[in-house]
Amino acid sequence: MASRSTRILEAAARVIARRGVRGLRVEELAEEAGVSTGLIYYHFKDRTGVLRQTLEFINDRAERYTTAEEPGAEPLGPREELDQVLLLELQDAPQVRENSTAWGELRASAVFDPVLREDLARATLVWVQEVAALLGRVHPLAPAAGLARAAERLTALLEGLSMRWLSGGLAVGHARALMTEAIEAELDGLRQPVA
Amino acid sequence: MASRSTRILEAAARVIARRGVRGLRVEELAEEAGVSTGLIYYHFKDRTGVLRQTLEFINDRAERYTTAEEPGAEPLGPREELDQVLLLELQDAPQVRENSTAWGELRASAVFDPVLREDLARATLVWVQEVAALLGRVHPLAPAAGLARAAERLTALLEGLSMRWLSGGLAVGHARALMTEAIEAELDGLRQPVA
Repeated sequence: MASRSTRILEAAARVIARRGVRGLRVEELAEEAGVSTGLIYYHFKDRTGVLRQTLEFINDRAERYTTAEEPGAEPLGPREELDQVLLLELQDAPQVRENSTAWGELRASAVFDPVLREDLARATLVWVQEVAALLGRVHPLAPAAGLARAAERLTALLEGLSMRWLSGGLAVGHARALMTEAIEAELDGLRQPVA
Repeated sequence: MASRSTRILEAAARVIARRGVRGLRVEELAEEAGVSTGLIYYHFKDRTGVLRQTLEFINDRAERYTTAEEPGAEPLGPREELDQVLLLELQDAPQVRENSTAWGELRASAVFDPVLREDLARATLVWVQEVAALLGRVHPLAPAAGLARAAERLTALLEGLSMRWLSGGLAVGHARALMTEAIEAELDGLRQPVA
């Protein structure tokens, strides 16, 4: 059984995905999680503490569903792993939709609320570095700066496509096709010698 | 002097950029615009009417600052025009920042509020078609489907980079450099015969 603090974070992700960051009140979160507001303050200090921990929680959860391997399966090559890390963020599964919605909301509310910015920037950097490392395993001779720029573009494109998908303007299959072509193009670019 | 309905829309864009779509109340908008709430209801029917018209207003305004030509200057070639349409969305000028913030907010709130989705999808389509047409003027032999996909990626990437810039995680100059390379890469891709 999940610990009570995990249950609170699961509930926070659900509330944010349903009503947005600005719809998250500690009282409603307590009700959603089935705990007292006192317990939330005990674990997270204040609403900002909840938001910061929720950001980390949805990041960890995304990592789990984009890097899970079938038990007993062959280990993935770097190219397959790269596809998986980027494309599994675009799948019409309730948990992915909830996670991506909450992530997009945290990103959008950071425009107005500086309190989340540093955590969000750090989480983004970790994600970019992870994708850059995978690109580097596909093309070990590519320069580090090129890998980092390709990873920044692929992750920013994924965020842009994800928002269009979640706001109903783009079919998830088409978003994946666009993303697949972008991965190909970035890998092509890294294959060429830099001028 | 701007008409009263334009003044209301200018005020709505300011309020959305300052506090978000969900911070927009008709009473506060009336105060910001220096008009009565009655006048707002008269021109826009309800809050949804204000949001829909504001979406159109910020679109038109973006079109003006990304396609403006210096008086008496040589007309731009298609490649320069393409760069301008995409890169001038990433400049640290108050109006661009306000416009991009409001656009990002409308996109983010459409995830929760279906009322804006159709208008947003239509505005996005028009933007994608405009960029696809410019790409087609650079590479007249490229197939229409390839132009459309490249335009979808470039505009989604721009939205993703713009959100990172506005939420403080990416310097505007670096965002422009990433965007410039993406334009190059998409144009390269359109130059190659499709397999």
